[in-house]
Amino acid sequence: MNKNQWVPRDEDYKSRIERLFAAQNMMATLGMSLDHVTPGHVEITMSFNTSLSQHHGFHHAGVATTGMDTACGFAACSLMDASEEVLTVEFKSSFLAPATTPEFRFVGEVLKAGRSLYFCQGQAFGIDGGTSTLIASMSATMMAKRA
Amino acid sequence: MNKNQWVPRDEDYKSRIERLFAAQNMMATLGMSLDHVTPGHVEITMSFNTSLSQHHGFHHAGVATTGMDTACGFAACSLMDASEEVLTVEFKSSFLAPATTPEFRFVGEVLKAGRSLYFCQGQAFGIDGGTSTLIASMSATMMAKRA
Amino acid sequence: MNKNQWVPRDEDYKSRIERLFAAQNMMATLGMSLDHVTPGHVEITMSFNTSLSQHHGFHHAGVATTGMDTACGFAACSLMDASEEVLTVEFKSSFLAPATTPEFRFVGEVLKAGRSLYFCQGQAFGIDGGTSTLIASMSATMMAKRA
Amino acid sequence: MNKNQWVPRDEDYKSRIERLFAAQNMMATLGMSLDHVTPGHVEITMSFNTSLSQHHGFHHAGVATTGMDTACGFAACSLMDASEEVLTVEFKSSFLAPATTPEFRFVGEVLKAGRSLYFCQGQAFGIDGGTSTLIASMSATMMAKRA
Repeated sequence: MNKNQWVPRDEDYKSRIERLFAAQNMMATLGMSLDHVTPGHVEITMSFNTSLSQHHGFHHAGVATTGMDTACGFAACSLMDASEEVLTVEFKSSFLAPATTPEFRFVGEVLKAGRSLYFCQGQAFGIDGGTSTLIASMSATMMAKRA
Repeated sequence: MNKNQWVPRDEDYKSRIERLFAAQNMMATLGMSLDHVTPGHVEITMSFNTSLSQHHGFHHAGVATTGMDTACGFAACSLMDASEEVLTVEFKSSFLAPATTPEFRFVGEVLKAGRSLYFCQGQAFGIDGGTSTLIASMSATMMAKRA
Repeated sequence: MNKNQWVPRDEDYKSRIERLFAAQNMMATLGMSLDHVTPGHVEITMSFNTSLSQHHGFHHAGVATTGMDTACGFAACSLMDASEEVLTVEFKSSFLAPATTPEFRFVGEVLKAGRSLYFCQGQAFGIDGGTSTLIASMSATMMAKRA
Repeated sequence: MNKNQWVPRDEDYKSRIERLFAAQNMMATLGMSLDHVTPGHVEITMSFNTSLSQHHGFHHAGVATTGMDTACGFAACSLMDASEEVLTVEFKSSFLAPATTPEFRFVGEVLKAGRSLYFCQGQAFGIDGGTSTLIASMSATMMAKRA
């Protein structure tokens, strides 16, 4: 997939997504930061946080899922009209490795942009120094909704 | 599906799940409570919390997903040996309605218990007074792992 | 879920679905028959066919998936306007038991009917004499499209 | 993902997969051919076949799903011991574009190989002359089973 293939309809897509990200209280609660926004491609980062653990002490599956969902949603949103809002229709997450690293990066990308539906894929990477490991992947459907 | 069909191998399954639930810091962080545990069936409740919102002001999709995943995981866990631990292999969540109600209930149930894999289904209900609405559903695979 | 809750907008939904089912060559190729159509609920049956096997000799996973997808799609279609057509957006299938029985029944039901999106669930049962076993389950999203 | 990263444990993986593919009657019934096998990566091709259509005249969603499932399953199988058999645990398919082209190619790749579980991704391409379009994608979990 060529990340450069997408042409945004709203030239202010970047500031629009920054505003929407800031309006998601969930991002601050989980300690997630918007790191990279290009058309059809969004990246989010966070540090390991012991208050988000499951019973083995590593991050709950819901954490990477929330990060990938947000990255995919805003990747779709970056290609929408300024008057449209993004909603998650559904997603599937697969968990390839435990979330135990000091840092994480969540990547969302648009595979196909339709009139109202956007097919996206997400990836969660665990980062420990110079080593990056794929720990989870997502397949998601997003919907554009007139505000 | 008959919830009474499952016979737990560990008669202390209930206290074991209560301990594991308490060990999940994520549950306290999101304000989730264990409400009901029977063999192959677990329910979790929470109240609406504005710090868990997405950009429209209702709960982020990651919240119901985390609740359903935990309910499904512990539903599987209730049927495992005391020496086994539960891990999420993958799940799919579908979002039927926005999460705007004052209260929520997440239900996880085992559809099929194999030797190491458990197929589960989850439901998220939004509760407003006496009205309960299905707002999300989950299809999940859980794995038993020797500790 | 109450199967009687759905009110079709097209009173000729049944004959419309019978026509569409007959137009799916795939159904004849796999030996599937439309067995039951009520609003938001469709059932399809077939017999075991050795020409549809995978390498262990039982039915390929694609067979039950095709049956559940068709049942879910027409369950959604039964609630659409006569001028709308149904398309599959995505589905997830879980395989609980091998498809080895002499007969099969595929059930599709609508969980939520939106303006353009329909959330459905499917089940595949293996039938051997009087015994029916859940062998696969589906979670699907269908879309209504103006013809 | 680096396709060259995988080292097969069974050096005869290729002939083993050719035997298993030939044993899948479903492949002959749908007109699918094994086209390419390397460790953790399998490709399957087929031509458009009007007997596999749904009601709009293009291929039923079950066709690409069957092709991607088989490609993913054998991609996992290529990394297993000769004594192990592959079973599909679950998959999700997303349908990005209608299957109307003269030719199709289904690609399956292993993302993560665990002790018993393999996480795979699949892609279905519609091919018309020199043009190849992504028409469907799959996220799948495969299981190794001792024969």
